[in-house]
Amino acid sequence: MKRILLSHGSGGKATASLIKDLMLEKFGNSILNELADSAILESTGKQKLCFTTDSFVVNPLFFKGGDIATLAVNGTVNDLAVMGARPLYLSCSFILEEGLEWNMLDRITTSMANAARKAKIQIVTGDTKVVEKGNADKMYINTSGIGLLQKGLIISKEVIKEGDKIIINGEIGAHGLAVMSKRENFKTNIKSDCAPLWDIINNMLSVGGVKFMRDPTRGGVATVLCEIAENSNIGIKIKEESLPIHENVLSFSEILGLDPLYIANEGKVITVVDKDKAKPMLSNMKQNVLGKESAVIGEITKGNKGKVLLETVIGGERIIDRLTGDQLPRIC
Amino acid sequence: MKRILLSHGSGGKATASLIKDLMLEKFGNSILNELADSAILESTGKQKLCFTTDSFVVNPLFFKGGDIATLAVNGTVNDLAVMGARPLYLSCSFILEEGLEWNMLDRITTSMANAARKAKIQIVTGDTKVVEKGNADKMYINTSGIGLLQKGLIISKEVIKEGDKIIINGEIGAHGLAVMSKRENFKTNIKSDCAPLWDIINNMLSVGGVKFMRDPTRGGVATVLCEIAENSNIGIKIKEESLPIHENVLSFSEILGLDPLYIANEGKVITVVDKDKAKPMLSNMKQNVLGKESAVIGEITKGNKGKVLLETVIGGERIIDRLTGDQLPRIC
Repeated sequence: MKRILLSHGSGGKATASLIKDLMLEKFGNSILNELADSAILESTGKQKLCFTTDSFVVNPLFFKGGDIATLAVNGTVNDLAVMGARPLYLSCSFILEEGLEWNMLDRITTSMANAARKAKIQIVTGDTKVVEKGNADKMYINTSGIGLLQKGLIISKEVIKEGDKIIINGEIGAHGLAVMSKRENFKTNIKSDCAPLWDIINNMLSVGGVKFMRDPTRGGVATVLCEIAENSNIGIKIKEESLPIHENVLSFSEILGLDPLYIANEGKVITVVDKDKAKPMLSNMKQNVLGKESAVIGEITKGNKGKVLLETVIGGERIIDRLTGDQLPRIC
Repeated sequence: MKRILLSHGSGGKATASLIKDLMLEKFGNSILNELADSAILESTGKQKLCFTTDSFVVNPLFFKGGDIATLAVNGTVNDLAVMGARPLYLSCSFILEEGLEWNMLDRITTSMANAARKAKIQIVTGDTKVVEKGNADKMYINTSGIGLLQKGLIISKEVIKEGDKIIINGEIGAHGLAVMSKRENFKTNIKSDCAPLWDIINNMLSVGGVKFMRDPTRGGVATVLCEIAENSNIGIKIKEESLPIHENVLSFSEILGLDPLYIANEGKVITVVDKDKAKPMLSNMKQNVLGKESAVIGEITKGNKGKVLLETVIGGERIIDRLTGDQLPRIC
């Protein structure tokens, strides 16, 4: 009998097939079919709204650089931001396990309020359910968000073409490893990059030339690049040596046999930008506190349609594919 | 050490204190503070939007008259509808337990698509997470919804006054008992009333005189009446003999020692209406398939401010208070 596996939640191939097989055809409509980070809604007003949802099941609840609450706020804020939408309203729904310490929920709701303030989003509606002990792991949080699409903005993956540059706003792989370190009691200094991205993205959009943006969370940078290559049927080449990776992350993931390209980030945005705008975009990004380590990591190529190639440090090439199994469960 | 109890999810006194103590002050803003079924958002357009969220943890997943999917769609649709908002967009986020049968998820997503079609709402965005076996009970679903507030509508609990009538659109208590019967393997014919309420509510609004609407889900009719009495600081008197309750529900809840007034409904709306509109409202409601058994169950009184009185069949009176403990956990 076919069953749900942890890999169906990994954001890789299994997740994609589950969505395709069980949801897309049944629920299908022109808005959902876009499968973007947020849905762009029809609107009677002058500006369009974006709408997105995420459930957070991270284990443990607290880790270096964040907790389930900062994740729940920033995850949804960033899904709006990468669509070019200013985050406005957040809903917040808790599923609590019977027996959870009151103080722990108190810490989480305090953290949530702080994260919302920092991200300039209002929590306007919510819900709380409690399930019997043993039917949840302490707490799960769902947040849904509404954002206002910035006027006149065009982010269209249809216009991605040869020569366009791929930029990221800093070092990758920290979030997933920070969560894992805490879970497994490893001694590392790796801190989650969890942060709200609207401010840097808003600045980036003013430079112009942005063709696509997505935050590389579950499945990491590799998964986002594969999605771009497949969906736009273009080739992508990235250079291993240009990937910003902190030394700690690199050595720790080597020990664990993990590839940082597939590890979740929670404060990163991958941007496809017109090649003429790459330079001003980089300088713009570096002025932001969340963009100091920004780098061009690759570009759109003519050949290899639908594929992502990594040029290794020693000059070889390998194909980057979507994750088949599950690297790190429950990191968001 | 203070801990979270099942009663914190019951919708009664414990839920109210949790929201007040851990969330309201921290998250507080003028929109959230209303604590309505949906948040009414600021808008740049001509019409205002409503926004609501609910997580569903019902056990078992399937029961007579519905399942977790119909519940997840209609629960959110109804939270929009009772605000006078036409349901437009739905998000849908799954938390799945590793090992869940693929076929069961297939049935649930099919049911969800059908329920959305019936309720005329589009599922536009979603999310799927998987947790290890033993960290959830098969599946939990969160839905958030966006609705369009109908132009020129005023539903204001501030204008509730002596003599206003309290109307319900049919028999109470079926949903909670249907879920419980399935869970405990009781043999009953009781079927959940789970249904989308926008059509009947839209018709009711055209009659005019509507001062307040809420769907009596968790905590049942009693809890909604207590909220109205407390929040508007008015008295409410209801008549036991006028409460529409199916014989099966009555006898089954007597056996179990439950009070139907506190049992969850999923296709009911309690309406406070101007006394002059009560008659046309009733005839309007009875034309709808979901309103055949509509009845005036009570009225706003001068005395007993903040309290709900029940006039019993034998002529006595008793005070209806909020639920302290937990009657039926996980019925939605």
